[in-house]
Amino acid sequence: MIEQKTTIKNLALIAGVHGNELTPAYLVKYLQNSDNLLARPSFQSHTLIANPLALKQRVRYVDTDLNRCFNRADLANPNYRQHEQLIAKDIYQQILEKSIDLLIDIHSTTSNMMLAIIYSNPHPWLLKLFTHLTKINPEVRLIYHPVSEKENHFLKGICPLAFTLEIGPVNHGVICPYLFRQTETLIYQILDYIEQENYLAAHLDTFSESLTVYQRLGSIDYPRNEQGEIKAMLHPQILQRDYQAIQPNQPIFLGFDGQEIIYRGESELYPIFVGESSYKEKGIALCWTEKKQIDININ
Amino acid sequence: MIEQKTTIKNLALIAGVHGNELTPAYLVKYLQNSDNLLARPSFQSHTLIANPLALKQRVRYVDTDLNRCFNRADLANPNYRQHEQLIAKDIYQQILEKSIDLLIDIHSTTSNMMLAIIYSNPHPWLLKLFTHLTKINPEVRLIYHPVSEKENHFLKGICPLAFTLEIGPVNHGVICPYLFRQTETLIYQILDYIEQENYLAAHLDTFSESLTVYQRLGSIDYPRNEQGEIKAMLHPQILQRDYQAIQPNQPIFLGFDGQEIIYRGESELYPIFVGESSYKEKGIALCWTEKKQIDININ
Repeated sequence: MIEQKTTIKNLALIAGVHGNELTPAYLVKYLQNSDNLLARPSFQSHTLIANPLALKQRVRYVDTDLNRCFNRADLANPNYRQHEQLIAKDIYQQILEKSIDLLIDIHSTTSNMMLAIIYSNPHPWLLKLFTHLTKINPEVRLIYHPVSEKENHFLKGICPLAFTLEIGPVNHGVICPYLFRQTETLIYQILDYIEQENYLAAHLDTFSESLTVYQRLGSIDYPRNEQGEIKAMLHPQILQRDYQAIQPNQPIFLGFDGQEIIYRGESELYPIFVGESSYKEKGIALCWTEKKQIDININ
Repeated sequence: MIEQKTTIKNLALIAGVHGNELTPAYLVKYLQNSDNLLARPSFQSHTLIANPLALKQRVRYVDTDLNRCFNRADLANPNYRQHEQLIAKDIYQQILEKSIDLLIDIHSTTSNMMLAIIYSNPHPWLLKLFTHLTKINPEVRLIYHPVSEKENHFLKGICPLAFTLEIGPVNHGVICPYLFRQTETLIYQILDYIEQENYLAAHLDTFSESLTVYQRLGSIDYPRNEQGEIKAMLHPQILQRDYQAIQPNQPIFLGFDGQEIIYRGESELYPIFVGESSYKEKGIALCWTEKKQIDININ
């Protein structure tokens, strides 16, 4: 039994952490120029384009991946002065100065992730929000990504209540009208929920629900030759099938020579970020998750 | 009546001109390591990854767009020493030294271009090849892009017989197994045709056919505000509909505010490169073409 009376006073909507993810960046720019769309009586929404230079150049980053620069130790390191390291320090200061209670970092992905919410802090307020969103929006998927303090170098780590939105599939460098509108709608659903919850929290609400969550367990790289070169593609049976179970003995890669490479694990894999183009540099062909039902009881 | 006895002795297959177009680059790498797949008795196939550094960095280019560096004047300019300008000079030398008769420059695009052949030289040998390919391969589309000597800064301009293949849709940074196989098949179809034609040319063949060609006429940019910022997306009715006519008074863009922007021209547009992500830097939302039937008579 969890008691919670969280009230949100300041929300941050951030996009453009990766400069080639145009759909969320142009959505947040549009919302920045249309203040009334975000206005709700009980709290304030702050918008930010995180890396305008990368956005102008339409590259993921200029010097280094901004969404790997938010480790507390790195933020405090005066020697870290690359473009994105300086931006990270500035964003961290802004989050503190504006007393942000809830931070939403919006990304796009080339994978078929739909409207994916990725969270590392299973706070009851967030779980209740996510339960609400999955009920009213069939496109929403939930991904729990537990990270240790040391591994935590993501933007969402600098605010107690925070999550990442990953919308896809959309090519980098492309503004997708469907995902633009779907994401805009989801943001309004979140804003309306906060508004309602800020009011209801005064009364305390009881709440008991079950939630489907994909818990991130690890990742798989592409098969490579001795020189480290990729020697296979994701198999057509896997592509675009995020959240769909891969069974033992199912082909997972297709060699350039036509040979299938079989998944030899003993249990089902639930893949996400299948073929995300930015993850080749990170040695990731797909991330794998465990599909879970979790029970939430709030009183 | 055109007479032709062209024989191909040396073919160049080039990919990786843009380092983020992984599907053709990995296909050509694979063919490089599998010489027997390209072997045909009557001619030699030469393969080249044009910009290995850009490919390693997974960027379109390092300093400047390589496929805009092949103007004859620029190739002869000793002051042009940017990374891609030097590569262009080296490729030009290689093409001359290897006496390349036919050059195929393979690209991928985020647009739904299928297997698009883009040619600037309507040479009868090429038109006969294209006729053959459209007959045996339903995915092939033909685009005629006439360019003046001064505008000609494309790789395909440095060889008398040459064309570009544009395969799509595929995200930059992604290896698409479908397009990999389709392009591999098309290359074998081209090789087999050359082999056959090298033999038949000795006998001279008569030939009379009609061909559907999309002739490139120009391009349209995204609507922008006074600061030059994009203020609208391609309309969902247009997206992924390359080669499908846009009618007068049809919406063509969708403003971020939801307002439709209507095409007010008086005649049909046939769009190609619809929403190609790399073309935002060139001020191109789509290219437009005229759909034509051309008659070919070869004796």
